[in-house]
Amino acid sequence: MLTYSLDKKGTDSLYEFLYKCIKKDILNGTIAANEKLPSKRSFAKNMGISVITVENTYSQLMTEGFIYSLPKKGFFAADIKNTMQKKELPAENDIEDKTCEQNKCNADCTATQTDSRNFPFATWAHLMREVLTQKQTDLMKNPPAGGTLELRKAIAEHLKGFRGMTVSPQQIIIGAGTEYLYGLLIQLLGFDKRYGVENPGYSKIAKVYKSHNVECSFINMDKAGVCVEELEKTLTDVIHISPSHHFPTGIVMPVSRRYELLSWVSSSPSRYIIEDDYDSEFRFSGQPIPTLQSIDISEKVIYMNTFTKTLSSTIRISYMVLPANLVRDFHSKLGFYSCTVPTFEQFTLASFIGGGYFEKHINRMRKLYHTKRDSVINALQNNKYAHKIEVLEKDAGLHFLMRLHSDICSEHFLKQLESCGIKIMPLCAYYKNPPDSALHYFVVNYTSAVHEKIVDAIEHIQ
Amino acid sequence: MLTYSLDKKGTDSLYEFLYKCIKKDILNGTIAANEKLPSKRSFAKNMGISVITVENTYSQLMTEGFIYSLPKKGFFAADIKNTMQKKELPAENDIEDKTCEQNKCNADCTATQTDSRNFPFATWAHLMREVLTQKQTDLMKNPPAGGTLELRKAIAEHLKGFRGMTVSPQQIIIGAGTEYLYGLLIQLLGFDKRYGVENPGYSKIAKVYKSHNVECSFINMDKAGVCVEELEKTLTDVIHISPSHHFPTGIVMPVSRRYELLSWVSSSPSRYIIEDDYDSEFRFSGQPIPTLQSIDISEKVIYMNTFTKTLSSTIRISYMVLPANLVRDFHSKLGFYSCTVPTFEQFTLASFIGGGYFEKHINRMRKLYHTKRDSVINALQNNKYAHKIEVLEKDAGLHFLMRLHSDICSEHFLKQLESCGIKIMPLCAYYKNPPDSALHYFVVNYTSAVHEKIVDAIEHIQ
Repeated sequence: MLTYSLDKKGTDSLYEFLYKCIKKDILNGTIAANEKLPSKRSFAKNMGISVITVENTYSQLMTEGFIYSLPKKGFFAADIKNTMQKKELPAENDIEDKTCEQNKCNADCTATQTDSRNFPFATWAHLMREVLTQKQTDLMKNPPAGGTLELRKAIAEHLKGFRGMTVSPQQIIIGAGTEYLYGLLIQLLGFDKRYGVENPGYSKIAKVYKSHNVECSFINMDKAGVCVEELEKTLTDVIHISPSHHFPTGIVMPVSRRYELLSWVSSSPSRYIIEDDYDSEFRFSGQPIPTLQSIDISEKVIYMNTFTKTLSSTIRISYMVLPANLVRDFHSKLGFYSCTVPTFEQFTLASFIGGGYFEKHINRMRKLYHTKRDSVINALQNNKYAHKIEVLEKDAGLHFLMRLHSDICSEHFLKQLESCGIKIMPLCAYYKNPPDSALHYFVVNYTSAVHEKIVDAIEHIQ
Repeated sequence: MLTYSLDKKGTDSLYEFLYKCIKKDILNGTIAANEKLPSKRSFAKNMGISVITVENTYSQLMTEGFIYSLPKKGFFAADIKNTMQKKELPAENDIEDKTCEQNKCNADCTATQTDSRNFPFATWAHLMREVLTQKQTDLMKNPPAGGTLELRKAIAEHLKGFRGMTVSPQQIIIGAGTEYLYGLLIQLLGFDKRYGVENPGYSKIAKVYKSHNVECSFINMDKAGVCVEELEKTLTDVIHISPSHHFPTGIVMPVSRRYELLSWVSSSPSRYIIEDDYDSEFRFSGQPIPTLQSIDISEKVIYMNTFTKTLSSTIRISYMVLPANLVRDFHSKLGFYSCTVPTFEQFTLASFIGGGYFEKHINRMRKLYHTKRDSVINALQNNKYAHKIEVLEKDAGLHFLMRLHSDICSEHFLKQLESCGIKIMPLCAYYKNPPDSALHYFVVNYTSAVHEKIVDAIEHIQ
């Protein structure tokens, strides 16, 4: 009969020891497939242990499928097809986590990282505590797929005051970042649609479309934005644009082009416009531009915005405003999804907006970015290259364009910047097949935490 | 020359008033397309206002594209193609937000809502405050696409202690809910793959696949889980299973079937297994079953788990453990994505796990659910239907099966329950084409906040 020496038990309990022994013997074939095991009673007696211990052991082995029982016949070893082998795991550092890599450059003008010193920690912490105290029941309730009504109401109010948009909270869908919402929109509008992104543009957007395996064209822009002829030529159904402030060119789409696009979109039921309004809060002069969404009468514009630019990129809250017909589609097709933003963050943000803190924060940040921008431009204008540098599209958003006179060698200039620790992106990098006209242009993000270093580095260009 | 009566200005600033007047006239055609506007100086003189006001107005109108300027010629009205019309918005209550609907039933045995009274608010609040104070800089840093290293390390430790799994933090990918991770996996494994889900099964999983427009088959199960022959027959590439505790049947997949599946998966490079271990923490008797992931030597098993069952469904944190080869793919294909979980939640959860609070919480919840289960079963056994009811698969997870003797009319019984305010799902509801063998079975979730009401309602069945 099956016997194991209890001397080898070590610190295991009797039950654990027995379980491991039998399991091992079944796996290595010592106990053959379909071999009968001793009855509980006789096994216990043989080992000098209690029947309950054997019972527990058999019961666990049975749950895991190592043994099976036949009524009135007893217990048998299961037929394990493969043999167990120790799995080789990758070494801790085997897999490089590229995104973890520390940035080695001093003055990174390509970073979109938020400056942690500007986040309203005190207010946020205060509101969080309030939410935790006052909303315990609501915090544990599953919100609708589109997000909590509180946050959707707060966003609707904000859009009214800040963008002159009249939208109902039902039209608002909250999600964990715009990248997530792009994916959700593909599920809503269809994988069979042809999507279009601006060329040049923010490369992540095209990556999201490609990664969802949908057709995605790069739509060339002229001075007013994407060209309608290009949309027609590429048979684009859904165009993803940022008319309020295009990245990286800084173009604000004029009203005439807006109406051209609205006319294009309304002429086929499969067409839609995604209006990505990612940094409209940071316009420095004049009134903000009215959104396409607010002049759209054909219910064809999906408005999208995010709190990652205004608050922090590590708070993953974005939202979209759907036209009424798509709201219905959303609930019937995608209403089964759980909202991806924790209720906790949603309630805190709702209080933050509702209490007027968000508006104050935006105003404070706008001033701060204005100052940062001016000091970077000032440093550029007092540099030895000053007369060869032109600053463009500086009135909106969190970056500007810099044009070098064509008699400077761009490569040489970039190398000089690099030697001073300045990282900067040429405009060409944002193009699919960059045209000659994009040469000598550079994109300067000046909002990052290392802004002082940027100014300092510019001053030290020799 | 263009003249507007300042009497009508109201509370607007001069600049705003002028802007609105000109914009309106361009939109309604009073100022024709390409018509020349007065020069700034003459217009200011004519209106009796300062040149700067006109300058600001023109500048804003130009940014928005209502007017344009030609060098040395002056300003002209743009050619606006469409006319602006007031957009009709849906009424507040026009769009029904179905998910918002209040549940009208007293004792809902279909709900998976967490009981807010069980959430460890005090500990969570304490850790949150700590994170806010000590981690301000880290909170504002963009984490890698897979999540913060802190949380990944904490999860790796947890998996080691709790599931006997040896995984490196690099293999762990954190995301805002399993539904989100399913979508991410489709992007990783391919839209051209054929996916398979368990039949019967949790209907949301199939919905996610369908919604991503990939082929998805319902794989029939026998008593040991999904059948390998069915996988072969349907040409399934990726099978999505919950071997530790199947929902809703409660089946624990025996080791023999596990090895059959591992043998199936390793025989083609396109094949993968998604092991959804959604409620393994709540096993009531015996040791938890070792995961498929830990006996997989071919690097073909993707392990997935969530904190929505153990903590709260409103905390959207789930994770998957990728085999090493897929970790590399993930970073090259999807490394551009931002992690969808706020850093704040990630750090708090990492402290919660690292501080041993998570283990304590699970133990507490296991006991609580055990008690809840017993009281529901007890109520069933003291009911007038007691001798006609059998309770099955009650040793694991957060639900059990109830079988009615075939001489009770299921419809009649369901109606009786309904009249007592009890909502319960027949097993058939989880099948695509339910077999006769599923008749008379019902699924009872007993963990919800209204558990007392369930017991009470059962006691009142007449």
